[in-house]
Amino acid sequence: MADLSSSSTTTTVVELQYEAYVPMAVKCIKSICLSARSTWKLDSIAVVHRLGPVPVGETSVFIAVSSVHRVDALDACKYVIDEIKASVPIWKKEVYSNGEVWKENSEFMERKMEFGKGVQSKSGGCCGGKVRVMV
Amino acid sequence: MADLSSSSTTTTVVELQYEAYVPMAVKCIKSICLSARSTWKLDSIAVVHRLGPVPVGETSVFIAVSSVHRVDALDACKYVIDEIKASVPIWKKEVYSNGEVWKENSEFMERKMEFGKGVQSKSGGCCGGKVRVMV
Repeated sequence: MADLSSSSTTTTVVELQYEAYVPMAVKCIKSICLSARSTWKLDSIAVVHRLGPVPVGETSVFIAVSSVHRVDALDACKYVIDEIKASVPIWKKEVYSNGEVWKENSEFMERKMEFGKGVQSKSGGCCGGKVRVMV
Repeated sequence: MADLSSSSTTTTVVELQYEAYVPMAVKCIKSICLSARSTWKLDSIAVVHRLGPVPVGETSVFIAVSSVHRVDALDACKYVIDEIKASVPIWKKEVYSNGEVWKENSEFMERKMEFGKGVQSKSGGCCGGKVRVMV
Protein backbone atom coordinates (compact mmCIF):
# COMPACT_ATOMS: atom_id res chain seq x y z
CA MET A 1 0.00 0.00 0.00
CA ALA A 2 2.64 2.57 0.95
CA ASP A 3 5.63 2.86 -1.35
CA LEU A 4 8.76 4.86 -0.92
CA SER A 5 9.15 8.25 -2.46
CA SER A 6 12.49 9.56 -3.62
CA SER A 7 11.38 13.17 -3.33
CA SER A 8 10.87 13.82 0.37
CA THR A 9 13.79 16.24 0.46
CA THR A 10 15.86 18.08 -2.08
CA THR A 11 18.59 15.52 -1.36
CA THR A 12 18.08 12.20 -3.14
CA VAL A 13 16.81 9.43 -0.87
CA VAL A 14 18.64 6.19 -1.66
CA GLU A 15 16.61 3.96 0.66
CA LEU A 16 14.62 3.92 3.89
CA GLN A 17 15.48 1.85 6.92
CA TYR A 18 12.84 0.84 9.44
CA GLU A 19 13.50 -0.32 12.95
CA ALA A 20 10.93 -1.39 15.51
CA TYR A 21 10.53 -2.54 19.07
CA VAL A 22 8.91 -5.66 17.63
CA PRO A 23 6.94 -7.07 20.61
CA MET A 24 5.31 -3.69 21.25
CA ALA A 25 4.78 -3.02 17.53
CA VAL A 26 2.99 -6.36 17.09
CA LYS A 27 0.89 -5.71 20.21
CA CYS A 28 -0.05 -2.25 18.92
CA ILE A 29 -0.98 -3.52 15.47
CA LYS A 30 -3.13 -6.29 16.96
CA SER A 31 -4.84 -3.70 19.17
CA ILE A 32 -5.52 -1.50 16.14
CA CYS A 33 -6.99 -4.47 14.25
CA LEU A 34 -9.22 -5.40 17.20
CA SER A 35 -10.40 -1.80 17.41
CA ALA A 36 -11.21 -1.87 13.69
CA ARG A 37 -13.16 -5.10 14.12
CA SER A 38 -15.20 -3.54 16.91
CA THR A 39 -16.06 -0.54 14.72
CA TRP A 40 -16.71 -2.11 11.30
CA LYS A 41 -18.11 -5.47 10.19
CA LEU A 42 -15.00 -7.15 8.82
CA ASP A 43 -13.96 -10.59 7.67
CA SER A 44 -10.15 -10.65 7.52
CA ILE A 45 -7.40 -8.12 8.23
CA ALA A 46 -3.75 -8.59 7.33
CA VAL A 47 -0.97 -6.10 8.09
CA VAL A 48 2.69 -6.37 7.10
CA HIS A 49 5.30 -3.71 7.86
CA ARG A 50 8.78 -4.27 6.50
CA LEU A 51 11.78 -3.69 8.73
CA GLY A 52 15.38 -3.04 7.78
CA PRO A 53 16.39 -1.49 4.45
CA VAL A 54 13.64 -0.79 1.88
CA PRO A 55 14.87 0.48 -1.50
CA VAL A 56 13.09 3.45 -3.09
CA GLY A 57 10.01 2.32 -5.03
CA GLU A 58 9.34 -0.79 -2.96
CA THR A 59 6.34 -1.24 -0.69
CA SER A 60 6.94 -0.72 3.03
CA VAL A 61 3.46 -1.28 4.47
CA PHE A 62 0.84 -3.75 3.21
CA ILE A 63 -2.72 -3.75 4.58
CA ALA A 64 -5.50 -6.01 3.32
CA VAL A 65 -9.06 -5.88 4.67
CA SER A 66 -12.05 -7.91 3.49
CA SER A 67 -15.71 -7.38 4.26
CA VAL A 68 -19.15 -8.13 2.87
CA HIS A 69 -19.85 -4.43 2.25
CA ARG A 70 -17.08 -2.43 0.62
CA VAL A 71 -17.49 0.65 2.81
CA ASP A 72 -16.45 -1.35 5.89
CA ALA A 73 -13.20 -2.56 4.31
CA LEU A 74 -12.35 0.87 2.89
CA ASP A 75 -13.01 2.78 6.11
CA ALA A 76 -11.21 0.18 8.23
CA CYS A 77 -8.19 0.21 5.90
CA LYS A 78 -7.88 3.99 6.24
CA TYR A 79 -8.22 3.73 10.01
CA VAL A 80 -5.55 1.00 10.27
CA ILE A 81 -2.91 2.86 8.20
CA ASP A 82 -3.62 6.14 10.01
CA GLU A 83 -3.30 4.47 13.42
CA ILE A 84 -0.12 2.62 12.42
CA LYS A 85 1.46 5.93 11.41
CA ALA A 86 0.27 7.66 14.56
CA SER A 87 0.90 5.12 17.31
CA VAL A 88 3.05 2.09 16.42
CA PRO A 89 6.70 2.15 17.58
CA ILE A 90 8.39 1.87 14.20
CA TRP A 91 11.21 4.26 13.40
CA LYS A 92 12.10 5.42 9.91
CA LYS A 93 15.55 6.52 8.75
CA GLU A 94 16.02 8.21 5.40
CA VAL A 95 19.34 7.33 3.80
CA TYR A 96 20.71 9.87 1.31
CA SER A 97 23.66 9.66 -0.99
CA ASN A 98 25.53 11.92 1.46
CA GLY A 99 24.12 10.96 4.88
CA GLU A 100 21.09 9.74 6.82
CA VAL A 101 18.39 11.17 9.12
CA TRP A 102 15.91 9.56 11.53
CA LYS A 103 12.52 11.04 10.63
CA GLU A 104 9.87 12.17 13.06
CA ASN A 105 6.31 11.31 12.10
CA SER A 106 4.09 14.40 12.41
CA GLU A 107 1.01 12.31 13.22
CA PHE A 108 2.88 10.53 15.99
CA MET A 109 3.95 13.84 17.48
CA GLU A 110 0.38 15.15 17.33
CA ARG A 111 -0.84 12.00 19.08
CA LYS A 112 1.75 12.52 21.79
CA MET A 113 0.48 16.07 22.28
CA GLU A 114 -3.10 14.74 22.54
CA PHE A 115 -1.97 12.33 25.24
CA GLY A 116 -0.38 15.24 27.04
CA LYS A 117 -3.78 16.92 27.10
CA GLY A 118 -5.44 13.75 28.39
CA VAL A 119 -7.11 12.99 25.05
CA GLN A 120 -7.41 9.28 24.30
CA SER A 121 -7.04 7.90 20.80
CA LYS A 122 -9.74 5.71 19.24
CA SER A 123 -7.57 2.65 19.65
CA GLY A 124 -6.91 3.41 23.27
CA GLY A 125 -3.35 4.50 22.49
CA CYS A 126 -1.53 1.29 23.32
CA CYS A 127 1.86 2.89 22.70
CA GLY A 128 3.04 5.84 24.70
CA GLY A 129 6.13 6.47 22.65
CA LYS A 130 8.06 5.26 19.65
CA VAL A 131 10.87 2.97 20.56
CA ARG A 132 14.09 2.79 18.64
CA VAL A 133 15.95 -0.46 19.08
CA MET A 134 19.68 -0.16 18.64
CA VAL A 135 20.99 -3.03 16.54
CA MET B 1 -12.09 -7.21 -0.45
CA ALA B 2 -15.76 -8.08 -1.01
CA ASP B 3 -17.03 -11.22 0.66
CA LEU B 4 -20.34 -12.95 0.29
CA SER B 5 -23.14 -12.33 2.72
CA SER B 6 -25.68 -15.02 3.57
CA SER B 7 -28.28 -12.45 4.60
CA SER B 8 -29.23 -10.60 1.43
CA THR B 9 -32.75 -12.05 1.53
CA THR B 10 -34.86 -13.82 4.11
CA THR B 11 -34.13 -17.02 2.15
CA THR B 12 -30.72 -18.51 2.90
CA VAL B 13 -28.13 -17.91 0.17
CA VAL B 14 -26.10 -21.06 -0.41
CA GLU B 15 -23.64 -19.55 -2.88
CA LEU B 16 -23.23 -16.91 -5.55
CA GLN B 17 -22.43 -17.58 -9.17
CA TYR B 18 -20.75 -14.98 -11.35
CA GLU B 19 -20.72 -14.97 -15.11
CA ALA B 20 -19.02 -12.43 -17.35
CA TYR B 21 -18.49 -11.50 -20.95
CA VAL B 22 -14.77 -11.85 -20.25
CA PRO B 23 -13.16 -9.86 -23.11
CA MET B 24 -15.38 -6.87 -22.38
CA ALA B 25 -15.02 -7.24 -18.61
CA VAL B 26 -11.22 -7.25 -18.88
CA LYS B 27 -11.35 -4.25 -21.22
CA CYS B 28 -13.61 -2.38 -18.80
CA ILE B 29 -11.44 -3.15 -15.77
CA LYS B 30 -8.30 -2.02 -17.62
CA SER B 31 -10.09 1.19 -18.59
CA ILE B 32 -11.07 1.79 -14.94
CA CYS B 33 -7.47 1.23 -13.83
CA LEU B 34 -6.14 3.64 -16.45
CA SER B 35 -8.69 6.22 -15.34
CA ALA B 36 -7.55 5.76 -11.73
CA ARG B 37 -3.93 6.19 -12.76
CA SER B 38 -4.79 9.44 -14.53
CA THR B 39 -6.52 10.77 -11.42
CA TRP B 40 -4.26 9.64 -8.58
CA LYS B 41 -0.50 9.10 -8.29
CA LEU B 42 -0.31 5.32 -8.08
CA ASP B 43 2.34 2.64 -8.24
CA SER B 44 0.59 -0.69 -8.82
CA ILE B 45 -3.04 -1.78 -9.23
CA ALA B 46 -4.25 -5.39 -9.20
CA VAL B 47 -7.87 -6.48 -9.66
CA VAL B 48 -9.23 -10.02 -9.49
CA HIS B 49 -12.92 -10.90 -9.86
CA ARG B 50 -13.86 -14.54 -9.40
CA LEU B 51 -16.22 -16.18 -11.87
CA GLY B 52 -18.34 -19.28 -11.44
CA PRO B 53 -19.56 -20.51 -8.04
CA VAL B 54 -18.37 -18.64 -4.94
CA PRO B 55 -19.43 -20.18 -1.59
CA VAL B 56 -20.81 -17.91 1.12
CA GLY B 57 -18.01 -16.33 3.16
CA GLU B 58 -15.39 -16.43 0.40
CA THR B 59 -13.97 -13.36 -1.31
CA SER B 60 -15.36 -12.52 -4.74
CA VAL B 61 -13.48 -9.34 -5.61
CA PHE B 62 -9.86 -8.50 -4.72
CA ILE B 63 -8.40 -5.05 -5.34
CA ALA B 64 -4.87 -4.00 -4.34
CA VAL B 65 -3.52 -0.49 -4.91
CA SER B 66 -0.13 0.87 -3.87
CA SER B 67 1.08 4.46 -3.76
CA VAL B 68 3.61 6.67 -2.05
CA HIS B 69 0.90 8.61 -0.23
CA ARG B 70 -1.86 6.59 1.40
CA VAL B 71 -4.70 8.90 0.36
CA ASP B 72 -4.04 8.11 -3.32
CA ALA B 73 -4.29 4.34 -2.80
CA LEU B 74 -7.38 4.61 -0.58
CA ASP B 75 -9.29 6.96 -2.90
CA ALA B 76 -8.32 4.97 -5.99
CA CYS B 77 -9.37 1.69 -4.36
CA LYS B 78 -12.83 3.12 -3.60
CA TYR B 79 -13.12 4.43 -7.15
CA VAL B 80 -12.13 1.08 -8.69
CA ILE B 81 -14.60 -1.03 -6.68
CA ASP B 82 -17.42 1.51 -7.23
CA GLU B 83 -16.75 1.56 -10.99
CA ILE B 84 -16.53 -2.23 -11.22
CA LYS B 85 -19.94 -2.51 -9.55
CA ALA B 86 -21.41 0.20 -11.75
CA SER B 87 -20.06 -0.57 -15.19
CA VAL B 88 -18.36 -3.95 -15.70
CA PRO B 89 -20.39 -6.70 -17.43
CA ILE B 90 -20.35 -9.28 -14.67
CA TRP B 91 -23.62 -10.94 -13.71
CA LYS B 92 -24.39 -12.29 -10.27
CA LYS B 93 -26.78 -15.12 -9.48
CA GLU B 94 -27.87 -15.83 -5.90
CA VAL B 95 -28.41 -19.54 -5.30
CA TYR B 96 -30.80 -20.39 -2.45
CA SER B 97 -31.64 -23.72 -0.89
CA ASN B 98 -34.91 -23.62 -2.86
CA GLY B 99 -34.03 -21.77 -6.08
CA GLU B 100 -31.88 -19.10 -7.71
CA VAL B 101 -32.22 -15.51 -8.94
CA TRP B 102 -30.09 -13.33 -11.22
CA LYS B 103 -29.55 -10.08 -9.31
CA GLU B 104 -29.68 -6.58 -10.75
CA ASN B 105 -27.04 -4.20 -9.44
CA SER B 106 -28.65 -0.91 -8.39
CA GLU B 107 -25.53 1.10 -9.23
CA PHE B 108 -25.43 -0.40 -12.70
CA MET B 109 -29.06 0.52 -13.28
CA GLU B 110 -28.40 4.08 -12.08
CA ARG B 111 -25.44 4.34 -14.46
CA LYS B 112 -27.66 3.18 -17.32
CA MET B 113 -30.16 5.89 -16.44
CA GLU B 114 -27.35 8.47 -16.41
CA PHE B 115 -26.33 7.33 -19.89
CA GLY B 116 -29.93 7.76 -20.96
CA LYS B 117 -29.68 11.40 -19.88
CA GLY B 118 -26.42 11.85 -21.75
CA VAL B 119 -24.31 11.91 -18.57
CA GLN B 120 -20.87 10.39 -18.96
CA SER B 121 -19.22 8.43 -16.18
CA LYS B 122 -15.76 9.34 -14.87
CA SER B 123 -14.29 6.29 -16.57
CA GLY B 124 -15.91 7.16 -19.86
CA GLY B 125 -18.43 4.33 -19.50
CA CYS B 126 -16.74 1.70 -21.63
CA CYS B 127 -19.61 -0.73 -21.16
CA GLY B 128 -23.05 0.07 -22.39
CA GLY B 129 -24.73 -2.90 -20.78
CA LYS B 130 -24.12 -5.95 -18.70
CA VAL B 131 -23.62 -9.09 -20.74
CA ARG B 132 -24.61 -12.51 -19.59
CA VAL B 133 -22.71 -15.28 -21.31
CA MET B 134 -24.61 -18.54 -21.52
CA VAL B 135 -22.34 -21.46 -20.67
